[in-house]
Amino acid sequence: MNEALKLYPKITQLRVRYSETDQMSYVYYGHYAQYFEIGRTEWVRALGLTYKSMEQDHSLMLPVYDLHIQYHKPAVYDDLLEIHTWLTAEPGVKLQFAHQIFNEKKECLVSGEVILVFIDASSRKPVRAPSFFLEALKSSDQ
Amino acid sequence: MNEALKLYPKITQLRVRYSETDQMSYVYYGHYAQYFEIGRTEWVRALGLTYKSMEQDHSLMLPVYDLHIQYHKPAVYDDLLEIHTWLTAEPGVKLQFAHQIFNEKKECLVSGEVILVFIDASSRKPVRAPSFFLEALKSSDQ
Amino acid sequence: MNEALKLYPKITQLRVRYSETDQMSYVYYGHYAQYFEIGRTEWVRALGLTYKSMEQDHSLMLPVYDLHIQYHKPAVYDDLLEIHTWLTAEPGVKLQFAHQIFNEKKECLVSGEVILVFIDASSRKPVRAPSFFLEALKSSDQ
Amino acid sequence: MNEALKLYPKITQLRVRYSETDQMSYVYYGHYAQYFEIGRTEWVRALGLTYKSMEQDHSLMLPVYDLHIQYHKPAVYDDLLEIHTWLTAEPGVKLQFAHQIFNEKKECLVSGEVILVFIDASSRKPVRAPSFFLEALKSSDQ
Repeated sequence: MNEALKLYPKITQLRVRYSETDQMSYVYYGHYAQYFEIGRTEWVRALGLTYKSMEQDHSLMLPVYDLHIQYHKPAVYDDLLEIHTWLTAEPGVKLQFAHQIFNEKKECLVSGEVILVFIDASSRKPVRAPSFFLEALKSSDQ
Repeated sequence: MNEALKLYPKITQLRVRYSETDQMSYVYYGHYAQYFEIGRTEWVRALGLTYKSMEQDHSLMLPVYDLHIQYHKPAVYDDLLEIHTWLTAEPGVKLQFAHQIFNEKKECLVSGEVILVFIDASSRKPVRAPSFFLEALKSSDQ
Repeated sequence: MNEALKLYPKITQLRVRYSETDQMSYVYYGHYAQYFEIGRTEWVRALGLTYKSMEQDHSLMLPVYDLHIQYHKPAVYDDLLEIHTWLTAEPGVKLQFAHQIFNEKKECLVSGEVILVFIDASSRKPVRAPSFFLEALKSSDQ
Repeated sequence: MNEALKLYPKITQLRVRYSETDQMSYVYYGHYAQYFEIGRTEWVRALGLTYKSMEQDHSLMLPVYDLHIQYHKPAVYDDLLEIHTWLTAEPGVKLQFAHQIFNEKKECLVSGEVILVFIDASSRKPVRAPSFFLEALKSSDQ
């Protein structure tokens, strides 16, 4: 990941659920994809938008195209995590996120990158980031 | 549950996944709802139908109305389970299933009942069990 | 459920995740068991205890013995839910919870009861509710 | 991924569950990590070992160190998937898997790589692949 670009960073918190642990007593490795998504959902909300309304009112879909997770240390039950979420590039057809998850001791547990694609829900074709989204980004930066 | 009525019983198998364990090293209690659903999916397939086509081609939805699970013994990682699935009443607007899950030692781990409702997907209103479904049931019984 | 007994009620909030929806665009019926558990985790925290420390420091396990859920209306993506959690009896060997989940319009979406059993983690035998737990309950009531 | 190395390939089958779909009517992107793990569990079983006994009898843990998934096409409810699983390098301290998932039309839906690390469960330190594992690999190749 290009460390130089850290655009529009936001932080959200999350409590590890019992159901998310496995018999190693760690959070199951697949659940971090959900945690990243919560980071993105709250990142969108911080722009004054909701991911829900992007789907419902703007007829967009944002399926994931690529996911990469590096696991440094395990999260455990009842940890209060911080999910750091930002963009690594200005949005085009793709929306490129990076995430880092920290525990209460400020240890970085996992890092990851997720690439999503803007899709028009009716044509099911890729489209460029819509203007309402770019404007919300611009306003959030001021 | 009325033990007297055990209509159209079917059995399907399922292997416990690592992700389904929790830090007690047992299958998390909420996952049995998924196991029951797999039992119902395969029960429908055994009738020569698919639940998928009931949704897509017949415009039906079957949301769950009531779930009851009794936990007798824990399932553990890599158990090869048997899910027993049957109806406890002839279908009307409701479809009343019972399930029991056994491990390889033939111990009954959980019992449960699930009541679903036939809903017309366009009107979102309850409807009676459709005739193609009742006929598939009748044929399966011969 | 005995409506007359509503002991030590607590409320916690929860945002529905994208991953918790299914292709009906509703929260999958099995996920409410997780929501109930979050209600219980925060209920214990409100007593000044943590479920985590009950397991780790007091060598207790609290497996679920019985789960009953009634589904009234579906929860949908991004709903901000309120989970109401209380006891329906004073704790003995069993711990009997009731839950109700409301959406932002104050509609009751699901109701449920969950019975857990206090187990000593070393002997794996049922035990009565420990005194530190009963005292925390008593203090929380004042 | 180095396409040249495709060591000890195995194939396993899996049926998509209703609970694994989301409101896009696709399999939720985070669930493929579980599918990959089922591929690895069955890959180990094909060696005449079980992952369960590696944990229990050989006191090993195999936490995931790195996960990379590329999404080509969505899987949908009730798809009967084929998970192809192989090693991309001979095992050392790391165990490097690649996976591809195909639907019934033989379309490749996702590709991925997963790096695990052999950990001694008592010391919680990395160790080299144990000899019983290497021998099982060798025998499987004949």
